[in-house]
Amino acid sequence: MTATWPRLGGLLTTDPKVVTAGVDVLAEALERQAVPVERVDWRPPPAGTEAALAAVLGRRGQVEANVRAVGRMLSARPHLVDVRPASQALDLDPGTFLHAGPPLEWERASGPMRGALIGAMLLERLAETPEQAEKALSRGAARLEPCHHRGAVGPMAGVVSPSMWMLTVKDHQHGGVSYCSLNEGLGKVLRYGAFGPEVIDRLRWMGDVLGPALREAVRRHGPVDLLTIMAQALQMGDELHNRNRAATSLLLRELAADVAAGGRGPEVLRFMAGNDHFFLNPGMAAAKAATDAARDVPGSSLVVAMARNGTDFGIQVSGTGDRWFTGPAGTPDGLYLGSYGPDDANPDIGDSAITETAGMGGFALAAAPAIVRFVGGEVPEALAATQRMYEITLAEHPALQIPLLSFRGTPAGIDVTRVVRTGILPVIDTGIAGRLAGTGQVGAGLVTPPAGIFTDALTALAEQPADP
Amino acid sequence: MTATWPRLGGLLTTDPKVVTAGVDVLAEALERQAVPVERVDWRPPPAGTEAALAAVLGRRGQVEANVRAVGRMLSARPHLVDVRPASQALDLDPGTFLHAGPPLEWERASGPMRGALIGAMLLERLAETPEQAEKALSRGAARLEPCHHRGAVGPMAGVVSPSMWMLTVKDHQHGGVSYCSLNEGLGKVLRYGAFGPEVIDRLRWMGDVLGPALREAVRRHGPVDLLTIMAQALQMGDELHNRNRAATSLLLRELAADVAAGGRGPEVLRFMAGNDHFFLNPGMAAAKAATDAARDVPGSSLVVAMARNGTDFGIQVSGTGDRWFTGPAGTPDGLYLGSYGPDDANPDIGDSAITETAGMGGFALAAAPAIVRFVGGEVPEALAATQRMYEITLAEHPALQIPLLSFRGTPAGIDVTRVVRTGILPVIDTGIAGRLAGTGQVGAGLVTPPAGIFTDALTALAEQPADP
Repeated sequence: MTATWPRLGGLLTTDPKVVTAGVDVLAEALERQAVPVERVDWRPPPAGTEAALAAVLGRRGQVEANVRAVGRMLSARPHLVDVRPASQALDLDPGTFLHAGPPLEWERASGPMRGALIGAMLLERLAETPEQAEKALSRGAARLEPCHHRGAVGPMAGVVSPSMWMLTVKDHQHGGVSYCSLNEGLGKVLRYGAFGPEVIDRLRWMGDVLGPALREAVRRHGPVDLLTIMAQALQMGDELHNRNRAATSLLLRELAADVAAGGRGPEVLRFMAGNDHFFLNPGMAAAKAATDAARDVPGSSLVVAMARNGTDFGIQVSGTGDRWFTGPAGTPDGLYLGSYGPDDANPDIGDSAITETAGMGGFALAAAPAIVRFVGGEVPEALAATQRMYEITLAEHPALQIPLLSFRGTPAGIDVTRVVRTGILPVIDTGIAGRLAGTGQVGAGLVTPPAGIFTDALTALAEQPADP
Repeated sequence: MTATWPRLGGLLTTDPKVVTAGVDVLAEALERQAVPVERVDWRPPPAGTEAALAAVLGRRGQVEANVRAVGRMLSARPHLVDVRPASQALDLDPGTFLHAGPPLEWERASGPMRGALIGAMLLERLAETPEQAEKALSRGAARLEPCHHRGAVGPMAGVVSPSMWMLTVKDHQHGGVSYCSLNEGLGKVLRYGAFGPEVIDRLRWMGDVLGPALREAVRRHGPVDLLTIMAQALQMGDELHNRNRAATSLLLRELAADVAAGGRGPEVLRFMAGNDHFFLNPGMAAAKAATDAARDVPGSSLVVAMARNGTDFGIQVSGTGDRWFTGPAGTPDGLYLGSYGPDDANPDIGDSAITETAGMGGFALAAAPAIVRFVGGEVPEALAATQRMYEITLAEHPALQIPLLSFRGTPAGIDVTRVVRTGILPVIDTGIAGRLAGTGQVGAGLVTPPAGIFTDALTALAEQPADP
């Protein structure tokens, strides 16, 4: 007994220091007696998740698995190495179309997804009119497959058809290869569900001129280090999802001489220069390469894909392989173009949330204070969004740094257990498609995934055998 | 008497609210009696300046003169309209060289200024060796004249010889025209006082290839709106003096297609892309166009030029015409390249402080948190520097906004009376030249002008007839 006295002595002879957690009544009672209280914002795990959290967090090797998975993601070195038609790059057969998000059938497809598929039918000359295309699609004339199943990602509808040209990105660290289509610009574009003649004409020009010219330029230039461009762009006000002005300018600057050396140089440079979002697609392919490097680490609760098809929001987790956990896609809260409003908005769509999965986009809002003018809100909210994401991520990205936070790395590597435990959902900074096929973009804003898909993923992890 | 009672009543019947200024003893005495005191940071004007300050600030029309002068500066719309040899653009005769800063003779010229003049002699084939050039210059073979006297500005030594090509910038609002040379890149370059064969060869290539190609591209493109690029760049981490990465990328992006359409496109684009400071020179010409619009407003105490020749720091003021107020140039406090240190540094040099004069550079440090890695210090110091400059400026720039300060305009329009009154000196964010001729750049840092030149300018304003 005497041995414990010295420790208890301090408690009885000095002013108590009180820390409270949970219900407020204790803290309030003490404060009424003028006792200083430090309140800690702690809540018990959401009801029903305790057992699964305990099973996953208590499992031997879980920490190591996450360290390994996120370490692979952060050490990826994505380089743009080539540009090729999807038919070659992805072995895409005529009549097969890729799309954004988890698997989807025509019947459940939203307006912009249907619009983009109609456009792809017209582009591939599988139909002569939108009506013909729609009829053919509705009777199952095309095979639909997620981009993610072929190592690819696509913004918004993310529809890829065989004649579209794909950026080819290689991870020089782990050897993986990923793909993304070429960005068409803003407004009436296929990825937002528009399929008018100007959309198809532009896609034809991209296939005939832009793709071959970029292939020639990239091959002449040699591998383009995308992580270096992304790191610089974060210090230049981009968050690399909804704002890509700096990265686009830096990529154009990097490739300009080699594009100019080709026959259609002026035309191609003018197109690239006219599109502030040109870098979105190489950035997405880079993010895909990084997150793919983190796949299939047994026991890891790291999210390796977040993707939406306009109907469902899906995630994939390192420790659960290719399984999708899906729930209903929400509708972004943001600002609308022209006379459009919330009633015109389609639910969340696109593979572009791969940027958030890799520690950019909504997770890097603090790097892009000017973005609030595009998606709504105030500068302090952008800072707060990034700060909140540190609560649900495993690491800080060593290369992607935020000047405003004294060069702290972006929050990177979403951990399913932290999302469930804190109830904090990933913030995604995204474009908003019109809900009617053929409309195009109607706005931009912020959105979160449905909470249930993280609980589902946690349950699946908990149900895995303890010693794989 | 009774009429005053109601007003005094409040004083006697409510708790006093005390505001103190100046010496602390009054505030301290009250605080010891538990009276709340609001201390105001007020100091009397520096000894000897009271009469001049009173004369200038008390003069009828002084406020209106400053409003008019700074209004002209802020409403300037500088456009890059042409690129031409200095012989044509500035009527520069063989044997005449322009230089940065206030007037200077060879005898008083610093190492880097002498080095740049030697290089210009070699470039113009007025000498065959550096020794010949130095001998000729020392016996007065060349006429020296400040860039500012010809509507031009030049970074660092700012030496302009007839065969160098000049960016031609026109202010579409007020019609003024200004000029700046083309940027050579970093390291061993003429403007930092280097004159080796690689320096001269590069200048020859710039005259033979770069200048003509840019002329062709700018004429094909049409006027390039520089203020728009500058406004964007401030939202992309540039402060437009020591950091021009975003503005350079945006200008290249803007001109790329038109450069590519010319014969030497790839070569020229590669040179531009390889130089993060390419925009410094067009930005300086834009700042010169804006500050020139504010010149010669009778009675105005607005600074319209800050310029250094490596020996003297000079300012010009709107209300005192072309008169220079000069004092000894200080040495910047900053970071050094490689093994260089403070002993290698030349005193402050260059016309580039025209950027600060127009509300950029050191005045916009808060827009460029990443700059602290180049000039030293911490991010909060960059913020504090900008905040301090609001104390000595007349306005906030309507187009040049700082996201971090919730899009507040940069502090713009230095007022001689405010500088003298507060003792706060303009902060300049600058490169550091090696003090020995031929060295090149040795570092980058922050510097302030000598305080006396503002007092001298104030005295000159005070001595002007009251009713011009």
